[in-house]
Order: sequence, then C-alpha cells, then structure tokens
Amino acid sequence: MSTFASDNYAGAHPAVLEAIAAANEGHAVAYGADPWSDRAEALIKRELGEQAQAFFVFNGTGANVLSLRAACSPWGAVICSQTAHLNADETGAPERVAGVKLLTTPTPDGKLVPADVARLTDRLGDEHQAQAQLVSIAQSTELGTVYSPAEIRALADAAHERGLLLHMDGARLPMAAAGLGVPLRAITTDAGVDLLSFGATKVGALGAEAVVILDSGKHLADGMPYLRKQSLQLASKGRFLAAQFVALLEDRLWERLASHANAMAARLADAVRATPGVEITQAVQGNAIFAKLPAAATARLQERFRFYTWDAHTGEVRWMCAWDTTPEEVDAFAAAIATEVAAATA
Amino acid sequence: MSTFASDNYAGAHPAVLEAIAAANEGHAVAYGADPWSDRAEALIKRELGEQAQAFFVFNGTGANVLSLRAACSPWGAVICSQTAHLNADETGAPERVAGVKLLTTPTPDGKLVPADVARLTDRLGDEHQAQAQLVSIAQSTELGTVYSPAEIRALADAAHERGLLLHMDGARLPMAAAGLGVPLRAITTDAGVDLLSFGATKVGALGAEAVVILDSGKHLADGMPYLRKQSLQLASKGRFLAAQFVALLEDRLWERLASHANAMAARLADAVRATPGVEITQAVQGNAIFAKLPAAATARLQERFRFYTWDAHTGEVRWMCAWDTTPEEVDAFAAAIATEVAAATA
Amino acid sequence: MSTFASDNYAGAHPAVLEAIAAANEGHAVAYGADPWSDRAEALIKRELGEQAQAFFVFNGTGANVLSLRAACSPWGAVICSQTAHLNADETGAPERVAGVKLLTTPTPDGKLVPADVARLTDRLGDEHQAQAQLVSIAQSTELGTVYSPAEIRALADAAHERGLLLHMDGARLPMAAAGLGVPLRAITTDAGVDLLSFGATKVGALGAEAVVILDSGKHLADGMPYLRKQSLQLASKGRFLAAQFVALLEDRLWERLASHANAMAARLADAVRATPGVEITQAVQGNAIFAKLPAAATARLQERFRFYTWDAHTGEVRWMCAWDTTPEEVDAFAAAIATEVAAATA
Amino acid sequence: MSTFASDNYAGAHPAVLEAIAAANEGHAVAYGADPWSDRAEALIKRELGEQAQAFFVFNGTGANVLSLRAACSPWGAVICSQTAHLNADETGAPERVAGVKLLTTPTPDGKLVPADVARLTDRLGDEHQAQAQLVSIAQSTELGTVYSPAEIRALADAAHERGLLLHMDGARLPMAAAGLGVPLRAITTDAGVDLLSFGATKVGALGAEAVVILDSGKHLADGMPYLRKQSLQLASKGRFLAAQFVALLEDRLWERLASHANAMAARLADAVRATPGVEITQAVQGNAIFAKLPAAATARLQERFRFYTWDAHTGEVRWMCAWDTTPEEVDAFAAAIATEVAAATA
Repeated sequence: MSTFASDNYAGAHPAVLEAIAAANEGHAVAYGADPWSDRAEALIKRELGEQAQAFFVFNGTGANVLSLRAACSPWGAVICSQTAHLNADETGAPERVAGVKLLTTPTPDGKLVPADVARLTDRLGDEHQAQAQLVSIAQSTELGTVYSPAEIRALADAAHERGLLLHMDGARLPMAAAGLGVPLRAITTDAGVDLLSFGATKVGALGAEAVVILDSGKHLADGMPYLRKQSLQLASKGRFLAAQFVALLEDRLWERLASHANAMAARLADAVRATPGVEITQAVQGNAIFAKLPAAATARLQERFRFYTWDAHTGEVRWMCAWDTTPEEVDAFAAAIATEVAAATA
Repeated sequence: MSTFASDNYAGAHPAVLEAIAAANEGHAVAYGADPWSDRAEALIKRELGEQAQAFFVFNGTGANVLSLRAACSPWGAVICSQTAHLNADETGAPERVAGVKLLTTPTPDGKLVPADVARLTDRLGDEHQAQAQLVSIAQSTELGTVYSPAEIRALADAAHERGLLLHMDGARLPMAAAGLGVPLRAITTDAGVDLLSFGATKVGALGAEAVVILDSGKHLADGMPYLRKQSLQLASKGRFLAAQFVALLEDRLWERLASHANAMAARLADAVRATPGVEITQAVQGNAIFAKLPAAATARLQERFRFYTWDAHTGEVRWMCAWDTTPEEVDAFAAAIATEVAAATA
Repeated sequence: MSTFASDNYAGAHPAVLEAIAAANEGHAVAYGADPWSDRAEALIKRELGEQAQAFFVFNGTGANVLSLRAACSPWGAVICSQTAHLNADETGAPERVAGVKLLTTPTPDGKLVPADVARLTDRLGDEHQAQAQLVSIAQSTELGTVYSPAEIRALADAAHERGLLLHMDGARLPMAAAGLGVPLRAITTDAGVDLLSFGATKVGALGAEAVVILDSGKHLADGMPYLRKQSLQLASKGRFLAAQFVALLEDRLWERLASHANAMAARLADAVRATPGVEITQAVQGNAIFAKLPAAATARLQERFRFYTWDAHTGEVRWMCAWDTTPEEVDAFAAAIATEVAAATA
Repeated sequence: MSTFASDNYAGAHPAVLEAIAAANEGHAVAYGADPWSDRAEALIKRELGEQAQAFFVFNGTGANVLSLRAACSPWGAVICSQTAHLNADETGAPERVAGVKLLTTPTPDGKLVPADVARLTDRLGDEHQAQAQLVSIAQSTELGTVYSPAEIRALADAAHERGLLLHMDGARLPMAAAGLGVPLRAITTDAGVDLLSFGATKVGALGAEAVVILDSGKHLADGMPYLRKQSLQLASKGRFLAAQFVALLEDRLWERLASHANAMAARLADAVRATPGVEITQAVQGNAIFAKLPAAATARLQERFRFYTWDAHTGEVRWMCAWDTTPEEVDAFAAAIATEVAAATA
C-alpha cells in the first residue's frame, strides 16, 4: 500500500533498529540511568545548548501533556490555535490529565500571532478565569506551515512580557528546521522557546519523544522526574527510547530524513500545482500538503491511495509525505490525481 | 555487570527484535489498526479466551492506571495490598490520574485474602467514603509470592458478591503461570479475573504491556479506546507494540523465558538456603528472592553486584532473576554471598 | 450604594432569613437527612414533577460542575456557548474538577441552536477526541436572553438523537420562567431537560442552589450523593440550605421576586431606548440589559453607579436589576445615563 | 430529640443569625470584596497575627482540600493519621480533587508524632513515589484528643526540617483552644502551623469555614483566589460567610461556646466514669467522648438518644456535645446510660 495518510504510517529507519539492537547488550540500569540515555541527552545538548535537559517519553501526547504540567499551576490555562493537536486530537488529555484549560483562537494557517497572546491574556488577575500561563505552538503546524525564527521570537517576547512561557509542540520539529534550513536551536533555544516536545517518531523512530527543558533558569525541570512517572511516561527499559534518539541525532540523520520528506511534499505540490482543478490551500513548508479537489476525484483516489479528508464540508484533503516516501510513489500519485480530477471535472 | 536488581535491567530477547524488524516493512495504518495488532490480539484470545479484548499500551503503570479508570467511577476506590506497586511505586498516578482512592491493608506476603475484601468494603453505601469498586492483586506479587487459582477464585467471589470487580496486575504474570505450571487462563479468565494488566516487558520485550478486558459482558471495553488515548497510552506506530506480543506468544516463548527466570531464582534460593546467616523471608514462587543477611555482607556484595535493599530498617534485600540470567551468574553470586556472609559473621 | 452590577450584589429576601430562623430549632440530623430538606425536595417535585430528585449545594459553580460530573464519563465533552458561565467564569473548574473538555461555539445572543449540536458532534466515535455527551445551556443566558420552550425542546431532541443529555444552567431560571410567563416545568422537565442547576441565590437566597435530576429513568442520580460530597458541596447543617428553597418555593415567592427584577430591567430598557446615543444590544428578556454608549459617559456613570463593562473593546456594558431594585433607583439611573450620554455626545 | 451524635446536629447561635441579618442591608460587592469580609479578616488577624490571610469557604472538606491544593504540587503527598477526616470521611476528595496521595499511619489516639513524619518521608527524592510535602493534623482530633502547643511545635519542626509544611484541620479548633485554655495563636501561628482550616460551623455558625494562610513568607496565598474559585468554594454573596465569623470572633463568643461544649463533655465523662461497665477509651480533652459499653445497652440507648457507633466490631461509641447541649440533657443521658448498662450487665 502506498500511503499519503500520515508520517506515522511509515516504519522505523533501519539505523534506528540497529541502534536498538546495539543497546540490547547485557543488563542496564532501568528508568533512564543508563549510558544510552546519557549519550542521547548529550546529543540533544549539542543541538539545543548545554542548558537543555531532556526527559524521554513514549509519545507526542505524553510529551505535550507533560510539558503543560511542568509549565502550569493547577489554575493555569494554555493559549493555542483551535487546530492545535493539543485541542483537536488528544481526547481531552490536556484538560483531564494536565488539568488545564485551553484558550483557543481560530487561525487561518494554524499559526498564532502576538496579537492572539495579547487578546487571550486580557483577564490575567481575574479570579474567575483560569490564568494563561503558557503559549503553545506547533512547529511545523498541523496545517503544514512553519514559523520563522523571527515569528517565534515575537511570540516568545509576547509571552514573556506577560509572565507566560512558550512551549513548542515539535512533533515535526525536524521537518520545520529542514524546511527553513536552520539548525534546531535557531527555532527553539535561540528563539526564546522555554520547553519543547521533541518528536522523533515521525522522522523515523519506532516510537520515542522527549520533553526538553530549554531554560534551566526557570527550574521547570525540578519536578519533571515525578511528573513523568506520574504521567505514565517513564520507560523501565529506558535505553531503548534513548537509543532511537542517538540513531537520529548522531550524524544528523534526522536532517536527511526530514529533508527527504519535505522534498517529496514539494515534488507532489509542484506536480499538482500544474493540475487544473486542484487548489493547494496552505503554504507547503514541510512534509504536508493541504488541497481542495472535486469530491468525486477524492473518492476515486481513496480507493487506491490512503489519505485523509481534512474537512468533509469543504472537501479539503491532507497529503503527508514521510521519510520513506519515494519519488516514484509521488509521481504515481500525482498522475492519479491528474487523471481523477480531469475525469471529475470533465 | 551482573545484576540481580530487577528483571527490567535485562534487555529484549532476540526474537522480539526480529519480530519488530519483520513488522518494519512499508506503511501500516497507525494507532493499532494494523495486521500485527490483529495477530497479537488473536494470540491473546488463544491464551485467555475468545471474549478477551486487548489494548496495547507502553508500560505497567499505564496498564494499571488504565485498568483502574476502566473499572471505577469517579467516586470509586480500589482495594489493594500496602505493598502493591499501585500504592508504593507509581508516584500517585492512581490517585492523580485515575482519580481513585486506594484502600490498603498490610499483608505478610503481599497477598490479599477474602477477609480483607470484607473488611475494606464495610462502608459501601456511605456517602462520606470513596466506594470500593475494584480489588487489585498482583500476580506474582511484589514480594515474589504467587496466588493459587483457588486463592484468586476466592477473591473474585468475594469481590463479585459485593458488586466489585477483580483486577490483576500481571507485570509478572508469565512467571506466576510458569511457577504454578498452569496455562495463563487458569489464573485469569478461569479464576474470575475481570481485567488484567498483561506484562511483556519483564519477560523479554523492549517495552510493551496490554490491558486485557476478560469479561466482555460487563462492557468495560466500551470506553477503552478513549481512555487509552486520553491516558497518553496510544502508540502511533502501534504495530511495534503488537509485534513484541506476537514474538512472545506465538510459540509460547514467554513460558520458556519465565520458566528460566524462575529456575534461576530457585537455583539461587537453594544455594543460599545452605548458607548459614542468610534467611529467606518469603516463599520463592517466581523469579524473586527476599532475604535477610548481615548489613556488612550486603554492603560488600553491593560493591560488585547490583541489587536492591528492600527495607533499610530490617536489612531485607531483594534478588531478582531475569530471562537472561545465567547459571554461572547465579553460582558466582551465591558463592560471593556465602563468602561475604561468612566474613561478616566471623 | 445603588448598583446595577449584579443580582448577587443584592442581599437575601427577609422571608429567607425568617425561614432560616424557623429551621434553627434544636438538633437536626446532619447532611440533609432533615425535615427541611424533605420539604424543599417536595416543593421542587411540585414544580418540576414527581420524578425530580434534588441535591442541594452551595453555589452555582458547584451545581454546574456536579451536573457535568453526573452526566459525563471521564472521556466526555460538553457543548456550550463561548459566553457560557461554564466556559468564561469558572476558573477552569469544569476542566480541572469535572475533567471534561468544553466544545464551544460563538453565538450572537448566547443561545445554542440545534445546528451547533450537529456540528460539534461530528467526531462522535473518534478515539482522538473527547466525546460530546452533554449539551449545556443557560436559562436565562449570560447575555440576558431567554430560550422559548420550543427552542429548548429542539435542543433536547438534537441532543437525545445523538445520545447526548441536556443540562440547563438555571442560575437565573426564575427570571426566565417569569419572563416567559410559564411554569418552571415548561422550560425544564416538559422541554426535555435532563438535569438542572436550579439557582436560588440570585433570586433572593443567602446562598443556595440545587442540582435537580429531572429524568429518573437515566439513573443519573445514583452516584450523586458521592459526587456531591467529593465535589466539596455537601453541607453539614443541610437544613439551612433547604430552608432557603422552602422560603422561595412555598408560595412561589421566587415568581414575584423574579418578575419584579424583570420589570425593573424593562423599565430601565424603556427609559434608555428613548435616549439618543445608547444602543441596546441584546433582547431584554430577563433582568439584564446589554448596551453600548459613549466611553466617556460610561466612565462618568461608573463614578456614581456600580456596573460592569462587558467588553472593553466595544464599550458594551451590562446593567443588571435585582429582586430589590426599586423604581426610584431605576429612574435615577436612567436620568443619569441620559445626562451623561448627552454630555458625552455634545 | 436530644442528640449526642455530632456537633453539626446543633443549629446556629442566635448571634450568628443576628449578624447575618445585620449584614443584609442593601447591596454589597460580591465575591468577598465587602466590608464584612474585611472585618472578619481583621478579627482573624487579631487572633492569629497580622500576617494571617483568610479565605472564607463553605465547608470543612472545602477548607481541607483547598489547603492541600495550596500547599502541594501535583506530585505531592500528605502525611496524616489513618483516622483523619481527610482520609476517612471525605469520599476521596483529597485524591480526586486535590490530586494528592495520602500517606497514612495508624495512631492509638489520632495524633501524629515526629517519628511518623520521619518514617513517612523516607522516600523523599525517589521519583517512584508521590513526594511528601505536607503534614496534616486535626486539632482537636477525630478521636477527641488535643495536641499540646509543644506537640504541635515538634511536628512543625519535623516537617520544616524536611522541607514539608504543616496544616491543621481546625474543624474543632475552638474546642481545642478552649480545652487547653490558650489563645488560638498558641496552637497555630506560634506553634509553627503554616496553614489552617478554621472551623466555625461546629461552634455555632450556620455554615462557614476559612482557610487561613499563617505564614505570608511562603507565598501560599498567591494562588488562593484562583484555587478557591476553581474548587467551587467562592461564595457570591460573600458577606454572609464573613458575618458568621464576625459574630463568633467579635467578643470571642467562640470561646464561651467551645468551653460550654467541652464542659458538657466533661460532665458526661465524669458521670459515666462512675458507671461500672462503661470504659472511656480516649482522653476527654474537647467535646467528644469515646467509650465502650455492652452492645445491648447501646442498642437500647439508641432507641431514645441519637449517637454513633464508632466501631461496630469493638462496640466503641462516640458521644459528642455541642455548644447548645444542656446540663439537663447530659444528666438525663448519663442516667439512661447507667440504667441500660446495669440492665445489660445484670
């Protein structure tokens, strides 16, 4: 099956499996006190700065909820886009497990702007409302768009001026950095991000994410060991989460894999831009394409290719490329799109 | 390093890594809608009965908390031993994440008896107390002891008579079944257990557990998909959790690995029973040994072997064997114990 | 001080204090097992039907959160207006204490319509989103508007068809019923409402509310004693909450007090409608008026009269009349508005 | 009905009702920004020191849960006696609403000692256990016993040395102070208590409690306004909670009422001590008596007098005197006890 459904339909890169096998020698201290965890954290420090502190977890929702818990007090609220994964796709975990309220705003492209922060903090100090304490942005966003370093810095400033912190949901951080052509720290540490959900799964891991505390001065890391365990995110055989990060960070494999996924999305976007009857609806800045095409064409395409209808009302679809998507798959898919759209609009 | 610290210091069995590699072909639908998840559930049904419904999760605390959430209403309480992992080693996750109160009782051997259930349900119907709705037992227990099928059935009856359900924390279920020489279902489905945390990690997985709903008539599974996602336990690349269960269940590899771990514990117990100055404090029925020995001997041994002091006040220690513990390691450790205890008591 | 700030700036009606004094004789069984609680529940049954079951609580947020807890499972979500008190003024208690997600929608007048229910239930069955299980409406709304019985019935049908329940936040239920000129049951039980936060505080109590389960067939009441206690809402000297309801319900004092508050709002609305430069922005159907007037006039008026600016950006204000607002106060306020608006627009 | 069941079976002292009536004049700003709230806080400062900050709430469970939330982080645990109201009679609210774990210990007399604090903090720093952050004691205890100032100071020192805070559940604080013959501050502020649930209900209020932050240096009060509202404990007509405290504190009415309740308990204890066949099981230091007597006598007495059997297994009963218990009631009850015990042992 050739799929453009999600980058988590892809498997693991062989180097990740090799790293796991290499870590599978003899006994190692459980719960992360092992050499692979030390090595993975050292590599994260290399990318994000010496002050960075990494806590490995199982999945993206885990990383996000843990970040919220680390940054918010029990009366805290989190500002995010209405389309944020936090709001739309985590089954209420932020509310039920982290206990926070989400203060959401519609956005045309999935990206918050400083004016959103200003508007959604207008009740700071009012005991009748949960208090905004964190701004959370996704990089890249759920709509495939990417914040520039300057846009992130502006949000960080808007947050910090009001006493809030800035969190980045980096489930696709590698794709964003590769798309911008900047180092990871340019859009995290150096742009004022306080804490980060660092995603490895979508860029070729079996399943591994990390919460990275970027600003050691704010003591966000102090409670993290307890919060991670309590949030059901502490792996007993921790070396196997860490080994996946080592594989992806050691020679910057993440960069090659993310660039490839982005290139495949660009190839697909270029092809469909030349196809009458298809409208690309968001800037293609990472590995996702959002597009509108005739419903009949979508229906026919979904018989042969797996991808998601994003909005059943407008007919908008999402096509996602992965680290292992091939040019041949892209070309075959683009050709099929052209054929089906032509048939539907004939 | 030769360790007797914990069965989660051991790595993964090679067959588990092979199964993961075999599952790593092409794209697969995310979130568990893949053929490996179907295969793993089929194998669980083979072991536990056709009515069993399995939900794969990341770790043991996740499986336990999810089980509690499935079985209890928001005013529910859970009866367990004071030494239960739920109570002693989960950083308040049952209370904070599942929102339940634990009603605990001291036990000499980590095992609940029906009289505990009777006593701890004496306030059913009293609006001033959280209402007992679940009995949770560990098999094998945190003290290395094992419930017989009849003991489990008696607890199930005591629970069911009062309208409670029975949960089993089976982080070491394979060791218990192997120790008793019975099939898995003899101490779960057939003994009246309603829902199970089925542990694979300690018996040779990288990291994989499952919540198994054993009684489909009680509709406990209805909310499970939502609860699993909300509890941060839904893997995106679900095939890799399932593949680990396939590897362990397919040819009953679990049974050979668990039997081996138990045999190593028995070998160690036999050796130290012959050592004056060492007292084995709990029945050795699985892969753990609890013992008292002179503090000076413990200190000297811990310079060369890794194991935990269980109770700093009494000097009780825990020695845990794993699926990969070798007879040579056991013999060397037993010899060292004999030497150090002799020196300490000289 | 003459205030148009809130109906909870008013004190208690003398009959309420008399009822409390009358209940203050000798000992009474604590926690609601007293004759006043029985009498109050009987009076609620008289108004809302024999099947109604009442649970007295301290305040409106308590009644709302308890209602949500009674109606939702841990993965539940609640559909409400963006302006709902639940969403805007309860400091995240629905999220943090009830553990639910709110699915909100903007509304021009604070009122949901069936299409909102249809749209916000489009992900029923999707494990990645909290599941809508309850529709919550305020009667009268936070914007002073009132649902007709037919509008409520249409929402109840829209909810029930999809397996959801309908909750009414009746903090100002008496004003709504008086405004419509219908019995309480016409807009609750008979219109398909499943559970109700019945407010007494704003209509002349010291402080007393009730959660009323209107449909005994759905067993929502079964867990209520535990939920009420656990939600910190069980009064030890329960007779004093119940006595307040007795005072307001016995001779339908609530109806006279609510009608009076509504009449004062109508009087004020009539006066300001004749004032150039003031725009009434919402239908005046209860005891609240929303209006826009020049910012300078608002500033001058707030030096002498207490009322809230509802929206600092648009200059919209809220004027609220209470059970004890006098015609003289209304006339003096209306005159002051005319004077200050004239000065500001000169 | 003459009852010895609970001090919350008693009504309100007439001075409390008078204070409420006096506060019921005109409009007052809602949510505690009123002169009565200011006056009540000033009186609390007079008793407990200028640094004290008071937050009025509805009931004792509310005060306790709010205290726990103010003092603990999300991974926090609370050390208390197994018989603590927190543990035994709050339907899991500390766990479900405050999200904390209770670390309990059996005690012969309901009183913690410093060794309990030492023992229950032995896992500080261990990420696998909820971290003890608060010691909570009841004064007087649920068993009618009272801590001396020196005993409280020793517990405060034991807590503070380990980085924990000390909370006092003062549902019966007035009875304890009156029993010891010391000012309130001698057993709170001056003894090292950090935060206090200050009970008024049992000493003659309609229903009013306060959380008092005693140590302003620890910034525990910063989040209190948000926590109180979110915890469903913010009264809209706040003046009526405050007025009750004013009535009880103004001329130290609390002291006269508490002393009377204590005197009635002492009178009853004296009488039954002279009765063969009755054994008083706890020191009578406040307004409660715990005693064992023949089951047949208890059964006969409960036909005419209302009181609770504390322990159905041992036959221990609790007799509670209130601010309004009369010497005649005590004497009649004592005589009945003598008669029934004589009959039962004949």
